[in-house]
Amino acid sequence: MKKYVYFFAEGKADGNKDMKNLLGGKGANLAEMTNAGLPVPPGFTISTEACTLYYKNNESLPDEVWAEIWEALERLEKVTGKKLGDKNNPLLVSVRSGAPISMPGMMDTILNLGLNDETVEGLAKASNNPRFAYDSYRRFIQMFSDVVLQIPRRLFEEELQKIKEKEGVKTDPEVSVEGLKELIKKYKEIVKREWGRDFPQDTKEQLKMAILAVFRSWNNKRAIEYRKIYGIPDDLGTAVNVQMMVFGNFGEDSGTGVGFTRNPSTGEKELFGEFLINAQGEDVVAGIRTPLHLDELKSVLPQVYKQLKEIAEKLERHYRDMQDFEFTVERGKLYMLQTRTGKRTGMAALRIAVDMVEEGLINEKEAVLRVEPEALEQVLHPMFDLEERKKHQPVAKGLPASPGAAAGRVVFTAEDAVQWAKRGEKVILVRPETSPEDIAGMKAAQGILTSTGGMTSHAAVVGRQMGKPAVVGCGDIKVYEDEKKFEVKGKVVKEGDWVSIDGTTGEVFIAKLPTAPSEIIQVIMGKLPKEKSKLYPYFEKLLTWADKYRKLGVRTNADTPHDARLARLFGAEGIGLARTEHMFFAPERLPIMQSMILAETEEERREALAKLLPMQREDFYGLLKEMEGYEVTIRLLDPPLHEFLPKREELVEELHKKRRILEAMEFEAEHSSEAEKIVEELEAEIEKLEKLLARVEELHEFNPMLGHRGCRLGITFNEITEMQARAIFEAAARLLREGIKVYPEVMVPLVGHVKEIEDQKRVIDRVAKEVMEDYGVEIHYRVGTMIEVPRAALTADQVASVAEFFSFGTNDLTQMTFALSRDDAGKFLNIYLDKGIWPKDPFRTLDRDGVGALMKIAVEKGRGTRPELKIGICGEHGGDPESIYFCHEIGLDYVSASPYRVPVARLAAARAALQEK
Amino acid sequence: MKKYVYFFAEGKADGNKDMKNLLGGKGANLAEMTNAGLPVPPGFTISTEACTLYYKNNESLPDEVWAEIWEALERLEKVTGKKLGDKNNPLLVSVRSGAPISMPGMMDTILNLGLNDETVEGLAKASNNPRFAYDSYRRFIQMFSDVVLQIPRRLFEEELQKIKEKEGVKTDPEVSVEGLKELIKKYKEIVKREWGRDFPQDTKEQLKMAILAVFRSWNNKRAIEYRKIYGIPDDLGTAVNVQMMVFGNFGEDSGTGVGFTRNPSTGEKELFGEFLINAQGEDVVAGIRTPLHLDELKSVLPQVYKQLKEIAEKLERHYRDMQDFEFTVERGKLYMLQTRTGKRTGMAALRIAVDMVEEGLINEKEAVLRVEPEALEQVLHPMFDLEERKKHQPVAKGLPASPGAAAGRVVFTAEDAVQWAKRGEKVILVRPETSPEDIAGMKAAQGILTSTGGMTSHAAVVGRQMGKPAVVGCGDIKVYEDEKKFEVKGKVVKEGDWVSIDGTTGEVFIAKLPTAPSEIIQVIMGKLPKEKSKLYPYFEKLLTWADKYRKLGVRTNADTPHDARLARLFGAEGIGLARTEHMFFAPERLPIMQSMILAETEEERREALAKLLPMQREDFYGLLKEMEGYEVTIRLLDPPLHEFLPKREELVEELHKKRRILEAMEFEAEHSSEAEKIVEELEAEIEKLEKLLARVEELHEFNPMLGHRGCRLGITFNEITEMQARAIFEAAARLLREGIKVYPEVMVPLVGHVKEIEDQKRVIDRVAKEVMEDYGVEIHYRVGTMIEVPRAALTADQVASVAEFFSFGTNDLTQMTFALSRDDAGKFLNIYLDKGIWPKDPFRTLDRDGVGALMKIAVEKGRGTRPELKIGICGEHGGDPESIYFCHEIGLDYVSASPYRVPVARLAAARAALQEK
Repeated sequence: MKKYVYFFAEGKADGNKDMKNLLGGKGANLAEMTNAGLPVPPGFTISTEACTLYYKNNESLPDEVWAEIWEALERLEKVTGKKLGDKNNPLLVSVRSGAPISMPGMMDTILNLGLNDETVEGLAKASNNPRFAYDSYRRFIQMFSDVVLQIPRRLFEEELQKIKEKEGVKTDPEVSVEGLKELIKKYKEIVKREWGRDFPQDTKEQLKMAILAVFRSWNNKRAIEYRKIYGIPDDLGTAVNVQMMVFGNFGEDSGTGVGFTRNPSTGEKELFGEFLINAQGEDVVAGIRTPLHLDELKSVLPQVYKQLKEIAEKLERHYRDMQDFEFTVERGKLYMLQTRTGKRTGMAALRIAVDMVEEGLINEKEAVLRVEPEALEQVLHPMFDLEERKKHQPVAKGLPASPGAAAGRVVFTAEDAVQWAKRGEKVILVRPETSPEDIAGMKAAQGILTSTGGMTSHAAVVGRQMGKPAVVGCGDIKVYEDEKKFEVKGKVVKEGDWVSIDGTTGEVFIAKLPTAPSEIIQVIMGKLPKEKSKLYPYFEKLLTWADKYRKLGVRTNADTPHDARLARLFGAEGIGLARTEHMFFAPERLPIMQSMILAETEEERREALAKLLPMQREDFYGLLKEMEGYEVTIRLLDPPLHEFLPKREELVEELHKKRRILEAMEFEAEHSSEAEKIVEELEAEIEKLEKLLARVEELHEFNPMLGHRGCRLGITFNEITEMQARAIFEAAARLLREGIKVYPEVMVPLVGHVKEIEDQKRVIDRVAKEVMEDYGVEIHYRVGTMIEVPRAALTADQVASVAEFFSFGTNDLTQMTFALSRDDAGKFLNIYLDKGIWPKDPFRTLDRDGVGALMKIAVEKGRGTRPELKIGICGEHGGDPESIYFCHEIGLDYVSASPYRVPVARLAAARAALQEK
Repeated sequence: MKKYVYFFAEGKADGNKDMKNLLGGKGANLAEMTNAGLPVPPGFTISTEACTLYYKNNESLPDEVWAEIWEALERLEKVTGKKLGDKNNPLLVSVRSGAPISMPGMMDTILNLGLNDETVEGLAKASNNPRFAYDSYRRFIQMFSDVVLQIPRRLFEEELQKIKEKEGVKTDPEVSVEGLKELIKKYKEIVKREWGRDFPQDTKEQLKMAILAVFRSWNNKRAIEYRKIYGIPDDLGTAVNVQMMVFGNFGEDSGTGVGFTRNPSTGEKELFGEFLINAQGEDVVAGIRTPLHLDELKSVLPQVYKQLKEIAEKLERHYRDMQDFEFTVERGKLYMLQTRTGKRTGMAALRIAVDMVEEGLINEKEAVLRVEPEALEQVLHPMFDLEERKKHQPVAKGLPASPGAAAGRVVFTAEDAVQWAKRGEKVILVRPETSPEDIAGMKAAQGILTSTGGMTSHAAVVGRQMGKPAVVGCGDIKVYEDEKKFEVKGKVVKEGDWVSIDGTTGEVFIAKLPTAPSEIIQVIMGKLPKEKSKLYPYFEKLLTWADKYRKLGVRTNADTPHDARLARLFGAEGIGLARTEHMFFAPERLPIMQSMILAETEEERREALAKLLPMQREDFYGLLKEMEGYEVTIRLLDPPLHEFLPKREELVEELHKKRRILEAMEFEAEHSSEAEKIVEELEAEIEKLEKLLARVEELHEFNPMLGHRGCRLGITFNEITEMQARAIFEAAARLLREGIKVYPEVMVPLVGHVKEIEDQKRVIDRVAKEVMEDYGVEIHYRVGTMIEVPRAALTADQVASVAEFFSFGTNDLTQMTFALSRDDAGKFLNIYLDKGIWPKDPFRTLDRDGVGALMKIAVEKGRGTRPELKIGICGEHGGDPESIYFCHEIGLDYVSASPYRVPVARLAAARAALQEK
């Protein structure tokens, strides 16, 4: 018979940590912790297979599963010496969800299950603490009603408030036993009214309902939304953990807390966490009461603190990673409730990974695999500009829950955050506290600011996970959600006002602060001495390891010597894409470029090109020099010529204006020679404008993306290619003469047919030969092509017979493969993502099935013709970790990313290589 | 040792007709004719391998080849009893090119070779005809100088003219022997002056130079151009035929002619051709003298005529096809010089193929393979509208050299024809005569009109081959090429004036005559009774045979019941593409469509759609009804919405105008209540315009081809799909109720991801279910997708899991695969074709390597998922024969073509199936 229930107690468990799929993360950990000899309250786990069965079985469990559950319950009763529903010594249990992949706060939990009108009295007697018993009971009713019966929590909160008012007390623990009893009566009335039946007194019935409710919660709206955001499959299912309750609300020698074995924000090696005396776990997680730092436990319960420190060490040795744990102290006895790999900021991830290698806990490869490329991105995130910041006084300070600097306009609801962000606004989501319903809004915001909650509150946990700056528990601010404003020290901040928050310090500013590069970038750029940076050494070490293991080369996309220099500092090994067109937009060059375009004969065109030649040569000289020793791939002119001319509308308007002035002047001109002169000048200007307009109209294209651009320009006007090739080779020749080793690669864009590259290569090779003869040097160069037109990929065997390298232009390749204009996609991209038609924005993450299929064809066919063919990627996907994994898989030689993304690419490339095994 | 020279004489030849690649068409035929016992002048053929060797060997022939040639010459001397260079009985030979694929008039020919100052006298004696001998000599010098020495022909013509003037005669034969001798002297002076050496007197040297010149002519400019146009490989090479001369200019019992075994213009079974008495072949082909019809030979040389008729029958039995032959009569003795499969008009091809089946010469399959789809196109070409034509008097009548009607503006040079055509002008090329240099211009023109030349002149032959209407030898018109005008009966027609020509009757009109459908189309459309058409029965028979053998279905692209009806008459088996957007452009519908687009809420949009529903239903009702019993594929709304709104520029202008009026009126309005009213109205109009403009700007796209269109619309606005599906299914349901069998297929455009078709199919299936329930009928329908986005082809396995049929939209697929906007390609398409980068316009003929590769992937992957998947093509390539062959090869189920192209598609499909074996 299939086993659905897994028992754990007294140092021995049916499961272990490798059974996450079956027992969920929490269940597997409870088993593992039990096996590891940690003081875990006993219990049993109902497997995810039971969840799958539940959904298959029309949202119910078959009898044989129930039989197994009741058997486990009996074992639990035996182990604990207590009995569910026993009025003298009642067993109370927690019922918790636990999926194979953690979804914090997404599904339901019920505590104190097993209490009813009778057992509550038994508990009161057994514990000798009636207050605790009745408080537990009223909490249980409230939670059960919320989670299982789905009665609004608000109704119960209102009654609690009333009682407090009636008794004239402020906090929950101050409510009297009588008050609690009255409250329980009221609560039961609410249940009767709202649910139509009495609150269940049968404790087994309670357990049954709770288990089913947890399974049901797998498919609640917020869980589905969470899975969608994080790409978690819907069919994994959740397990249910039933575990003996231990009580942190048993008096002043009791308490409950959460902790991390290291600081999840900075990565420092210190016991980090929070606790509340005389409270249950939910109070900590929900962030309703602001808890105390774990350090303070040292003085309150020193023995427990010592034990906790030992356990933390044990945990890290056991799990070989930073752990996030929950514990409860019941009358001075420590229980470990759960542990799991702790979420951390990018900064913490980096530091922990490197530290653990030095502590001998993990090896270098593991360290590389521990740091997600996204984490590295975080540490490269901007901070506030230090100079600017000095000018501003923070208006308040909260907890520095998730590091990084963010500025944005204030919004007060998740929906608003989403809406504003869609309009392109940067927003800061300000809330009293956040809840799982706010996920989408948090994702859309630049940062999060809450008035309540601690370092492990929802806002803090999710903020760190998302890499969003967050300041939480900022008690100075008072949020009026309905009025869409908050007050802070007498100042009123309304929706749309600018605020800035610093998640690293907890500071809040009522201003739009400019941001500055991160510490690491400042070190790299020489603006901050290495010694002054705590973080940089970690960064350096990790990337040194990454470089050791990666197989992909990492180049950069850079058009200027400045960018090239920066990219080299970031570790780029050459340039994968230097766009030449940007060079023509400089104010002193544009008119020459325009005269080239307006030329009516080849001769005129050559004249203008001759003027551009020395300028281009300078450009390439600088680029090649900065990248000494590395290959520099220069792409020939790509955009359609009309991009260099003024817009039609502007010209028409200017013509209109000039003509109107002319009309007005003409009469005057008959009488004044000065006016006559102006008229003549005007007429000349108008004629020039008319000519320009005519050319603009002639060059107009319905679909410029599919128009007269790329190599089509070079083929139509060989002299343009000639000039660019000459500029490249002359620059190279000069540098070679100066003793600088350069390796130019000339890249022909938009090739779709082998004869296109053939035509262009003929011109380029001829010019190269001429320049080499003129300068008497040998230039090592290659001529290759972008693979950005589907046809080039499909006929890569032919193209490779001429091209000496390929570089995937995945921006355009994605446009063509999807028939999707990047400039226009915004009109329906969100609808497509919302409807789940595209799993991800294909311009951000490579589409493996479509664009990827073309890339595979191109690699295979290209290398079929020319086995030594060098293949890279220079589309923006070259800086996207997931896309980099794919590039590694299909055997590219290198990726090329923007300078700032080079470190991310280096790490991603290493991870791809290490994950392969 | 390799054999390079093939001998033929006296009923026995080294070669045969199957050796075309080696001996060229002419050489193989001479061998075959010799073997068949025809009276062929003896000679030998130097193979194409020698030509290849010539080019490999640095444009010269190795000694061993020369040795073989001299050996063959000795044999020839033995057989003929004459000797090359013998002053008493000189052997004269012709030296002619002959490539494996015929290139009429493209390469060089030399006649009368072997004459020199001595042999001319020997010939004069032997023939007892000094005039003939000296005339032959002067002709030989002229031709040799032109072809071998490349001295301009004009120089010789001028001297001939001078002699004629001096002797006061008009025609060449009238020149006296003394005159000819003087002419020879002058000719030799020209040679000495131009070439720098004496005219070669060594006859072997003459032969050597002539052979090399023929090989060289393979790569002359016009031959290369010809090969480019007709897609003939450059490496085939030409053979050289050296053959004993026979003389048509031996007196009144001699002559020369060309003939066809059937009429190449109409296909009638009659000996057809022309001859000249006392002339050599070049006089006929060049069209300088207008020859006599072969019929007249009956009275001039009855015995020869009889023999010729017998030989024609023999030729057809032997070659099983209509033959084009050249003959010469030397003193009453008939020699056959060459024969080859005759070029013919479409009409003749059709008729000959069908007649030959009935005569038992060939079978049905062969008949289908004999008629090129392009030939069928010709018979469907328009004729002049009969009513209109009656109103016009032809101004002149020439020879009806190539049938069909054409109207265009007059141009006088091939270059002008090309230039004007590039600008989109229709032109008629008018020339005294055409020559191979005019090919490009003839191709660019609508039709050709010449003042000289006969039915086998260059203009006539090439015109028929190209399917261009041509009127030749129109002696009434006098062409002044330099002044760009022609005169006809006192009227002057200048460049750019409109003329119309009828190649079927030879008539010329100075007017732009509207054209009317061809006879066949008139019969099909019921406008001409079947009995009254000569051509229709042939057409019907051939297509019946085609239908028997084809495997591809043939559907049509039709949006209206009228087109659907027409297409059925042409033999369409269903509709492959009905575009629904055209239906919204009707004046009464456009405003509703616009209000749908301007709707701000789903509700408003649904309101507008509800108004469109009954209209669409009517559309589909008509279409489905006309195609009873066949499948009708209806494509959902495809173009971006902005196509239905006015253009931005127009709106801005109108707004400007209205605002200016408003400004002017406002002052007045303060004093007049009437003006006030106008102002109010204006303000309302302006507001409406502003709203419209705002929406137009919102909908503006940079690349509409890659924008918010196709299924992206239906996915964004499910209600549009819903309305269209409802209209389709309600129309179908009504027809089914009326007992009419209909098979609608709903086609979702621009699918790139399986989830797109999934989304749309869900909507369509739901509506279908609702309609079927409402109407109580079962509709047999399919939901499928266009394959026009590369990604759809690449992921066809996924797409086919939902789509029930595929239809290749090769227009868009070509755009995406090439990254080429059809609307913008014109800017460089010609450069690409000229440079040979694309072999053909990819929008006309499917690109096999690129687009074809995607299609193959789609067919393979699609059928992998769904073996019964129906796959067709609805792009315009579906009517292009070459593309249809490809569709057959990759196993499509059907092609869909525009109604007029349906017969062509039926024939092409049959040929594809028959050629497969």
